Amino acid sequence: MNLIGVDWGTSSLRAARIAANGAVLEERGSPRGILTVPAGGFAAVLQDTCGDWLRDPSALCLVSGMAGSRQGWQEAPYCHCPAGFGELGRGLHWVVPGRIAIVPGLACECDGVPDVMRGEEVQVFGALSLLQQADGVVVLPGTHSKWVRVQAGVVQSFSTWMTGEVYALLRRHSILARTMPDEEGPLDQAAFTRGVRHATASGSLLHAAFSTRTLALFGQLEPHAQPGYLSGLVIGEELRVQATGVAEVTLVGSPALTARYALALATLGVRSRALGSEATWRGLWALERNLEAP
Amino acid sequence: MNLIGVDWGTSSLRAARIAANGAVLEERGSPRGILTVPAGGFAAVLQDTCGDWLRDPSALCLVSGMAGSRQGWQEAPYCHCPAGFGELGRGLHWVVPGRIAIVPGLACECDGVPDVMRGEEVQVFGALSLLQQADGVVVLPGTHSKWVRVQAGVVQSFSTWMTGEVYALLRRHSILARTMPDEEGPLDQAAFTRGVRHATASGSLLHAAFSTRTLALFGQLEPHAQPGYLSGLVIGEELRVQATGVAEVTLVGSPALTARYALALATLGVRSRALGSEATWRGLWALERNLEAP
Repeated sequence: MNLIGVDWGTSSLRAARIAANGAVLEERGSPRGILTVPAGGFAAVLQDTCGDWLRDPSALCLVSGMAGSRQGWQEAPYCHCPAGFGELGRGLHWVVPGRIAIVPGLACECDGVPDVMRGEEVQVFGALSLLQQADGVVVLPGTHSKWVRVQAGVVQSFSTWMTGEVYALLRRHSILARTMPDEEGPLDQAAFTRGVRHATASGSLLHAAFSTRTLALFGQLEPHAQPGYLSGLVIGEELRVQATGVAEVTLVGSPALTARYALALATLGVRSRALGSEATWRGLWALERNLEAP
Repeated sequence: MNLIGVDWGTSSLRAARIAANGAVLEERGSPRGILTVPAGGFAAVLQDTCGDWLRDPSALCLVSGMAGSRQGWQEAPYCHCPAGFGELGRGLHWVVPGRIAIVPGLACECDGVPDVMRGEEVQVFGALSLLQQADGVVVLPGTHSKWVRVQAGVVQSFSTWMTGEVYALLRRHSILARTMPDEEGPLDQAAFTRGVRHATASGSLLHAAFSTRTLALFGQLEPHAQPGYLSGLVIGEELRVQATGVAEVTLVGSPALTARYALALATLGVRSRALGSEATWRGLWALERNLEAP
């Protein structure tokens, strides 16, 4: 049986044809994220993207990501943590029974408040499968970073950090933007690690962020170094709380972003290794293998 | 001698004619904040605002606020903390000798990073003078909140919090804005204090802010209550670090904002009292009285 893996997010759609042994035979991308798809239009967009693959009568299509949200194709209710492969498989939301299913996201509760993810859970299980690990801390940096704690193949808890979004807001729309060049430029690594160190020694980003301005004011931070310093502050804030007491993490994301996190983590003495989009396809493949088990 | 007090900020200008006994005889406002004034145009704007007062040959004009910044009328170098009335007076930047002076701002260093204020230092000294106190914690909420520690009439240290600005960015430009009504509406006090409590129990706003979305997702926070909850989270983040171990603070600011901080502080068992614009005029008056001392 061939597997069609679909990672359908807010702003893009990626699809892969995956062999029974897990090899990715073909991969496609499309800008048709769920925000671009009108209600009732999801099946047609999927046909446009990989209708030829779907004609294979033995193909199973597993869709992860925001397609399963209330604003997506069909709402796939969250699996509540602790949750492993078994819970994800039993929680599949079948759009076409036996043919097309949406993978549920995960929900957990921390300090009396819920947290959620959609799509990252597949990457987490894929990363663990690729690394042949059942335990660990998996970090998915991005607009909303996720820190995921896994024990014995089961996601115990996780938390969401608005790191990427808050960086963009401060970088582009706050008073700090006034002294920065418009173009992002290459990362100033020294300024970045300085920001990481300051954030982890500080009590809160809400105060530490202002140091971008005051250092500039006193000629201690050049304009071209300010975006890197601010990036270090924001990522460092995430690490200040999450990386304490952690020896090693697995990063899953784009090479540019995982490299930045790896540098921040190394600054704090935390080891890391990085995986990319292969984690998604591996996770969907492992989920499908698990479905076949009795 | 009459004193002309001028509070010249980024977006507005306020002026007061103050009697020798400290009574405010007349007050005027203008939208000519420093951002609206072209280089070389400051003297003319001051004449437009209170030229009639300046004709009094015995009048002394003291200007506080961003008019003393690099982007303002003339740069008045910061006084470095610890700093009291004496340091402020000696640091006056005379634009017209004996007639018009700009009050310097304060600078301090915390965790190896500088912090700065311009204008708030006058409000701090004014508040202490009004309360006949020489010690205390003075909080000036706003776009960039200031927490100021005073001992024996001397500002020992302070820190800046980007609270108001980060609230506005999250409220209007982040993913959290999507589920909120556009109009601000009256403060939902229950949602606000819930936000304060959650922030002070949490490790970082960067994570806690996301709860605005997840609580909404699970139907545990109505749209109209979300701005108040988020406001509680952001102010609560400031208090989590700053209000720990503090029994009482003096708030200086607009009634709406000091009332909101008073509620947040009361939630944490911290007493507060509030002062408004009278603190500015009192501070400039006390500064002028101090200049007359031998």
